[in-house]
Amino acid sequence: MRARLDLEPDAVASAARRVMSRCDELARVSAVSGAIERVYLSPEHARVNRLAAEWMRELGMTTRQDAAGNQLGRLDVAGAPDARALVIGSHLDTVPDAGRYDGVAGVLIALEVVRLLRRPTEDGGWCSPFPFALEVIAFSDEEGTRFGKALLGSSAVGGQWDDDWWALEDADGMTLREAFRDFGLDPGRIGEAARRPADLVGYLEAHIEQGPELDRRGEPLAVVSSIASARRFQLLVEGEARHAGGTPYDMRRDALLGASEAALAIERICRAEHHIVGTVGQLEAFPGAVNIIPGEARLSLDLRGEFDGERDRVWNAISRELDAVMGRRRLAWGAREVHSAPAVFCAPLLQDVIREGIVATVDAGPPATIFSRAGHDAMAIGAVTDVGMLFLRNPDGISHHPDEAVSSEDVRLGIRALAESVAHLAAEPV
Amino acid sequence: MRARLDLEPDAVASAARRVMSRCDELARVSAVSGAIERVYLSPEHARVNRLAAEWMRELGMTTRQDAAGNQLGRLDVAGAPDARALVIGSHLDTVPDAGRYDGVAGVLIALEVVRLLRRPTEDGGWCSPFPFALEVIAFSDEEGTRFGKALLGSSAVGGQWDDDWWALEDADGMTLREAFRDFGLDPGRIGEAARRPADLVGYLEAHIEQGPELDRRGEPLAVVSSIASARRFQLLVEGEARHAGGTPYDMRRDALLGASEAALAIERICRAEHHIVGTVGQLEAFPGAVNIIPGEARLSLDLRGEFDGERDRVWNAISRELDAVMGRRRLAWGAREVHSAPAVFCAPLLQDVIREGIVATVDAGPPATIFSRAGHDAMAIGAVTDVGMLFLRNPDGISHHPDEAVSSEDVRLGIRALAESVAHLAAEPV
Repeated sequence: MRARLDLEPDAVASAARRVMSRCDELARVSAVSGAIERVYLSPEHARVNRLAAEWMRELGMTTRQDAAGNQLGRLDVAGAPDARALVIGSHLDTVPDAGRYDGVAGVLIALEVVRLLRRPTEDGGWCSPFPFALEVIAFSDEEGTRFGKALLGSSAVGGQWDDDWWALEDADGMTLREAFRDFGLDPGRIGEAARRPADLVGYLEAHIEQGPELDRRGEPLAVVSSIASARRFQLLVEGEARHAGGTPYDMRRDALLGASEAALAIERICRAEHHIVGTVGQLEAFPGAVNIIPGEARLSLDLRGEFDGERDRVWNAISRELDAVMGRRRLAWGAREVHSAPAVFCAPLLQDVIREGIVATVDAGPPATIFSRAGHDAMAIGAVTDVGMLFLRNPDGISHHPDEAVSSEDVRLGIRALAESVAHLAAEPV
Repeated sequence: MRARLDLEPDAVASAARRVMSRCDELARVSAVSGAIERVYLSPEHARVNRLAAEWMRELGMTTRQDAAGNQLGRLDVAGAPDARALVIGSHLDTVPDAGRYDGVAGVLIALEVVRLLRRPTEDGGWCSPFPFALEVIAFSDEEGTRFGKALLGSSAVGGQWDDDWWALEDADGMTLREAFRDFGLDPGRIGEAARRPADLVGYLEAHIEQGPELDRRGEPLAVVSSIASARRFQLLVEGEARHAGGTPYDMRRDALLGASEAALAIERICRAEHHIVGTVGQLEAFPGAVNIIPGEARLSLDLRGEFDGERDRVWNAISRELDAVMGRRRLAWGAREVHSAPAVFCAPLLQDVIREGIVATVDAGPPATIFSRAGHDAMAIGAVTDVGMLFLRNPDGISHHPDEAVSSEDVRLGIRALAESVAHLAAEPV
């Protein structure tokens, strides 16, 4: 086992303070005053990319925005500009009414890891001290807030872009293709964002847990074993819009009541399973007037499980139940799958180096190894390279909410552990 | 019993055709292309008022728009400009994605009744042939689509305006007060729209049934006995927004699942009653992202019954059930009442003259007498004068929907029956 890095405690503490204050600074870049919302290809996306690029250049990194709007910074191996790269990253986009740490903290921790590890070059610049370049990627769309499809930014990097996505529309009816052009990107060049496996050493990501496990255990950091298998659907229920006063119950085909039964059936079926969660985050009735029986209802379903097969079996059970519910109510229903991601398993080597990084940082027993129910960019970039993830304690597991938190002390531990992990990886025969 | 009116069959048939084609013409005045939507104080409201005023003036009526944006036309008694008036009317506003007959048909039938009954004056104008003036009112807001509060137009005429309403907001956050000014109306003069009981003989309204009763009976016309007692609420359910992946079921406080249970409980409770319907026409989850557990849900409740006491007892039962549902789910909930209207009973004399009008028109047995579950302007104007209503058959009871229909033949019968009713009323000692 190699020795610990010789990191200045003050430098690490100051790095943690910088992460916290930059999280606050990014939180002020929002489409909504008094709340945090930054969606893909928006003016806020452009602003945080500019900020991230500035911070990357301060560290001596060369920067570029790729064909999918991801912001990249790279610190080369001196004299070896074509060296393979270790990528560290996370995302800068948010859900609506978001917290300030989801994704953002991981990008900023990556920058501090680069700051702690970089070495000066003879010409007054900076380089990677390892046989691989250090790259930071701030992904542009992980949440899928605007177009309903998650992981757009990292899917482009992972070479998984699907041309069907161009027709996806935001709430205002603007297509993804139009939004690309509007942002100044060329849809025809999306393929250029894809990375070649041969150019990459691996991908590491620090992220708040977005769950209560570490908080319940009283531990600051965990190794991630795998990332949930997920499928997302948009469900449509169709009945008949009629006058709320004049229509007796026996003539009603109320789409909203069908949708309500669906939401409750999804909860009932998923609760009976281990390691499966199903969430209806959106539900709306149309035409949406106080005195009209809804003729149509639209709802979303987000389904996650540890294993693909289990997840698919549960979706089949939900489908059968919805057939029964809608049949009883003389309603039609249909589902459009808008996202599907197989479970992604973190590479054993990267799990090991992260575990060693935590052990070198936290004076305690072996750290927790956790399965991530939340999706992450690591899932999409996993198509082109090995991935590993470090989780930071998230008080009470509150995330996707303004009360989302992480302590400055845990960020300090996370920065140190991730820097140690990178050094461990450099010491491995890759 | 007085003799039938001596109406030219061709004139009545042509009146029915004119009503049908004007319904089509008004349907083209819409805020939404390909659908019908005209809300209070909108440009479409102004356009249909101008059309109605033009049609009123063609009949020799003097016209004015009152302080609440209702369009009025009046045909005086010759030589007695201060004579009391019989008002015939309905409304020109619509629900979203409306049909073309609800309200509109009643206004146009009223105009045709005036056309059939009016008498020429010596100076080449037209006057009422009866000891009372004939007034037509095209009410400006019956549905409450824009501000969530129904019967705004007729409440002003009925002297029931509530100053609390000025602060009501539309979906864009514009207050009712601002919308008044924007439309060119002076909020400070709203009281001028109120009519004095001493100036009115009564109010008659023809309307499509908005229910299936006449269609099931195979009869074209009915007398209305009373109009439903109604209350409307906006319900708010509060839980906690959290990440859909990371939050296990035991930590969830999902507001949308609480709202879904509420919608189903309302259906269950109301179905168990006679003559009570409860409808959740609006339901929305917030923040409304596919991967966030809803922290808040808002839903509407429209509750109608034949009698006020029965309606209130059912609301109390719903409240108790929601306390239990939300308690189990650790959710908070509250209700804001946005509309309340007591049951309104049609005046026995006006029920009689409408029954006689139908009998004089349709060669059949005594016509059906129906309780109206739908609300009508007659409810609000009932505060200042006696009201009577005539229902026209509405195929399959479909209303508040683009498929809403009424046959030209039933409109012909309705025009004739309403004209006969007015003549019957004129023959009564008032």
